[in-house]
Amino acid sequence: MLVINGAFERSSIFMATKKIILDLDTGVDDALAIAYALAAPDVDLIGIVASYGNNVLDVCAENSLKLLELLGRPDIPVYKGLPHSSTTDHFDVMQVSLDIHGNNGIGDIDLPTPQRELETMSGVDFYIEAAHQYGEDLIIIPTGPMTNLAAALAKDPEIAHLIGNVTFMGGALTVEGNVTDVAEANINQDAEAANAVLTSDLPLTMVGLDVTLRTLLTKQETAKWRALGTKAGIAYADLTDFYIDAYYNLDIDKNGCALHDPLAVGVSLDPSFVQTISLFMKVIYDEHNYARTIGDKNRLNDPNPNTKVAVTVDKDRYLATFMDYLTKLFAQH
Amino acid sequence: MLVINGAFERSSIFMATKKIILDLDTGVDDALAIAYALAAPDVDLIGIVASYGNNVLDVCAENSLKLLELLGRPDIPVYKGLPHSSTTDHFDVMQVSLDIHGNNGIGDIDLPTPQRELETMSGVDFYIEAAHQYGEDLIIIPTGPMTNLAAALAKDPEIAHLIGNVTFMGGALTVEGNVTDVAEANINQDAEAANAVLTSDLPLTMVGLDVTLRTLLTKQETAKWRALGTKAGIAYADLTDFYIDAYYNLDIDKNGCALHDPLAVGVSLDPSFVQTISLFMKVIYDEHNYARTIGDKNRLNDPNPNTKVAVTVDKDRYLATFMDYLTKLFAQH
Repeated sequence: MLVINGAFERSSIFMATKKIILDLDTGVDDALAIAYALAAPDVDLIGIVASYGNNVLDVCAENSLKLLELLGRPDIPVYKGLPHSSTTDHFDVMQVSLDIHGNNGIGDIDLPTPQRELETMSGVDFYIEAAHQYGEDLIIIPTGPMTNLAAALAKDPEIAHLIGNVTFMGGALTVEGNVTDVAEANINQDAEAANAVLTSDLPLTMVGLDVTLRTLLTKQETAKWRALGTKAGIAYADLTDFYIDAYYNLDIDKNGCALHDPLAVGVSLDPSFVQTISLFMKVIYDEHNYARTIGDKNRLNDPNPNTKVAVTVDKDRYLATFMDYLTKLFAQH
Repeated sequence: MLVINGAFERSSIFMATKKIILDLDTGVDDALAIAYALAAPDVDLIGIVASYGNNVLDVCAENSLKLLELLGRPDIPVYKGLPHSSTTDHFDVMQVSLDIHGNNGIGDIDLPTPQRELETMSGVDFYIEAAHQYGEDLIIIPTGPMTNLAAALAKDPEIAHLIGNVTFMGGALTVEGNVTDVAEANINQDAEAANAVLTSDLPLTMVGLDVTLRTLLTKQETAKWRALGTKAGIAYADLTDFYIDAYYNLDIDKNGCALHDPLAVGVSLDPSFVQTISLFMKVIYDEHNYARTIGDKNRLNDPNPNTKVAVTVDKDRYLATFMDYLTKLFAQH
């Protein structure tokens, strides 16, 4: 009863195929998230919403198209989200993002210009339409800023009561941040939007630094992809090695790169990878401790908290599943 | 494996009687902690170390003597700890402490001047002596500043490898603090001392605001003590009602008072009251976010973290146990 272990959610594996939307600022670990979503069984990736973040919106959107084509899924639509945070009128990529993800966002590897174009419908409208169409069967997985989802909530607040679950990569509850001592990078891009999402009635699962920094990938694993000799295997090995090198050179972690975004996808499909605590969360967005994610003390005894915060992860089982899924996918492309 | 539920520690109920030391800045909830420790079965309270905190050292020390005599245990020694933090040369009681605990620290109730005097040995030396004498059978429960324990560690670092467990009330990991948005009151008294304790090799259990603010007592319960008609029942009802009123009037919680210190005693004896996550913790003691308790990101993948942080509590079972123990004790005195 106390720490909930995903037993309830797992029952959904007996239900209909899950409809998922990824909201990505693609990004190396976003690229891994796409691969995980395509490789996992019983999942219908109905679309990707593009965000600014690891790079500017247009680059991130195009990266998603490129990767979908590399992985043989040009049928999946990509929708353009908003180009900057809810409290600014402009977005500049941080230098550290370029250092970690490469100047083109995907480890400076070359991929062909995508055949398919972006959808004309906005990402915000796609969210609203999908929420009404799929309701409880819909899982939304933002792994970048939450600007798009907050905008959709503002435009149609009812969707908070329709969507089955939002599992986001972002925040840090039990450990320090990675931008400041309190701020995690995704939340830091638009703390006010994140607060709007976290304090809404949406059922949320937070996959933050608490667990993603425990889940490391090394070049031992990427070597297996390269050895496949396929286009996708080689491309993913290269872009991930760029990321592993950045982690090493910037002294983020000498033992591998964190699987931030693909862990969120994994948890959304199988919540038993993590153990969670249930809280009403909030995001600080004034100057002092901007982007801190913290439990709301005043709601500690309110029933039915809307957010499950992942605090521990079965990293061995997750990593085995991740490698199984991705290696099989890359073998085919 | 992931969230540890105290299964290991519970095995100690089949071992010898536990030797415990309380380190108290007595204080209303410290008074409840004394009662819990005396009422719990198979516990040998070998001494109380006095601290400054809720009041000045001399008042806190005398309050412990008074309460031990009220509860029929004048045989238990009280040792004087240090009169101020490790980084100051003076201590003034905060007005809010007087507002919450009364000007005399125990809800302004009158208790007779104690017959017994304080020990001549210092609290710091008592810690060291007890650690060498009892080793793994010794549980230390600081529910105020950690100045005394940090001083003992500095004087004899070996005790970190002798003491069985330190279960402290203090800190806030998943919720905001109660002094600042990051600082909990006990840690805030001496964050540098707290950091010395948390980053030592001591096996620690943190019982912070995460769980204590969920564990509320109301006047419905204290009325049962008053109805006993005993000296102890009436005194404890009065001092606790003062505290409940302060919680109400200061808008800390309108629904009852938090059982901070007695929850730490309860968890030290029966860890299954809480669920914990294992971390290497640290305490920030520079100006920015002074007294924040947070997991050390750089040690997230190190094996065998020394601290179990309580994140959820079975408050119904704890409260039932608390009322059972204390009501039986008060009926006899």
